[in-house]
Amino acid sequence: MTAWVRYSHGGATGFGTLADGTIREHAGDMFAGSAPTGRTLALAEVTLLAPCVPSKMPALWNNFHERAAKEGNPLPAEPLYFLKSNNSFCAPGSTIRRPPHFGGKVIFEAELGIVIGRRASGVAEADALDHVFGYTCVNDVTAVEILRADPTFEQWTRSKGFDTFGPIGPVIATGLDPMTLSVRAILNGQTRQDYPVADMIFAPARLVARISRDMTLEPGDIIACGTSVGAGSMKPGSVIRIEIDGIGALENRYAD
Amino acid sequence: MTAWVRYSHGGATGFGTLADGTIREHAGDMFAGSAPTGRTLALAEVTLLAPCVPSKMPALWNNFHERAAKEGNPLPAEPLYFLKSNNSFCAPGSTIRRPPHFGGKVIFEAELGIVIGRRASGVAEADALDHVFGYTCVNDVTAVEILRADPTFEQWTRSKGFDTFGPIGPVIATGLDPMTLSVRAILNGQTRQDYPVADMIFAPARLVARISRDMTLEPGDIIACGTSVGAGSMKPGSVIRIEIDGIGALENRYAD
Repeated sequence: MTAWVRYSHGGATGFGTLADGTIREHAGDMFAGSAPTGRTLALAEVTLLAPCVPSKMPALWNNFHERAAKEGNPLPAEPLYFLKSNNSFCAPGSTIRRPPHFGGKVIFEAELGIVIGRRASGVAEADALDHVFGYTCVNDVTAVEILRADPTFEQWTRSKGFDTFGPIGPVIATGLDPMTLSVRAILNGQTRQDYPVADMIFAPARLVARISRDMTLEPGDIIACGTSVGAGSMKPGSVIRIEIDGIGALENRYAD
Repeated sequence: MTAWVRYSHGGATGFGTLADGTIREHAGDMFAGSAPTGRTLALAEVTLLAPCVPSKMPALWNNFHERAAKEGNPLPAEPLYFLKSNNSFCAPGSTIRRPPHFGGKVIFEAELGIVIGRRASGVAEADALDHVFGYTCVNDVTAVEILRADPTFEQWTRSKGFDTFGPIGPVIATGLDPMTLSVRAILNGQTRQDYPVADMIFAPARLVARISRDMTLEPGDIIACGTSVGAGSMKPGSVIRIEIDGIGALENRYAD
């Protein structure tokens, strides 16, 4: 297992592997090939950034059996997804901002993120994981009352697309079997979500294959796999942590 | 009125202004400031690219009075939009490809595109046009039967997000008053759409202001303003042309 981070240090952006609080700086392209520069940095002396810069983030709805059963939703015939907006992406440790013109409920949704490493277009399910670089944590923050506020048009993009509504990180972990993982959301120290990836309706390999039929997936793109039961609302001042063993904890504060 | 193009020539990407079939090459940043290099190129010797590379394209639904009336849709209280996927963007003259796993109807939708020139976040309507660089043509290609194929989830992203489903161009025209323009779609030589921008429910300045409250708009981002009546389907071999006076004609072939 290798943990990749991206960071800001001394005004420059860098990336490397993280182990035991030490970053080994790399040069090159995280996805196309890189090598250690020989320089190391303490985690404490850098500011972590989102671990990659996706060109897009397809994000699933209704992808867990337990949640579908609880909400009475039928199992979908194919992956149902929207796009998380690129302006929503934000770093571990950064602040999730309440939209200034919206006074309603803002919820966290803990999700597994699949990070693409190699361009994928129309790939077979059996080959799909060859196109995956690794996995990260995603918080699919949502202004939930906007979603169905207009009876004629579901506002997936707007309700989930505000600036800072897409924390990702803290690392991209490679060499994991995602089907063994659990995803947790911890709000102000209390565990609110804790569900197994194995409960997915469309598992990672199938998601990559199916979505790559529709749209070419590029290195650094992330598929947010959808959330299960327990997603809930945050109040200004809340600290929300998304945890996946082997990946780590993506912690952000929510504030006005 | 200035017409900006982006092109490929001799293996390199360039940009400049186009007049009378001659491109004056520029150096710098199209949005942040550029200057002529002194070199000129004939339009015929370059391959036009999409005139900019948006980080995102919010795209409107139900934004014309005539279409809303015809379809019996209520006037929306606020702009209703999805995101056109970044993999969908394609160049003037390129081929719109039928998705290999979809045999249904694929339609053209002629639209005005607002090209952002200066970052916009929470801007007032009175200041919104200061953040606009210019205007372009957009073809919001849609696999229309996918949109409401699942009764539990509207698939705006997927039906409109296939590779090549977002032709833009041929130029970005600056110094136009968009409210005086008409948007036409010409399919195999026959005019199928011809509607005035002035019929918009949310006009360009209001769209920029409202959407900038939700998401920070970056230079090169495009707002696709939605379409009016007359959008229709294409058959393999069709040639579809989106025309706006002062901007020009965005022509693409549709093929398997």
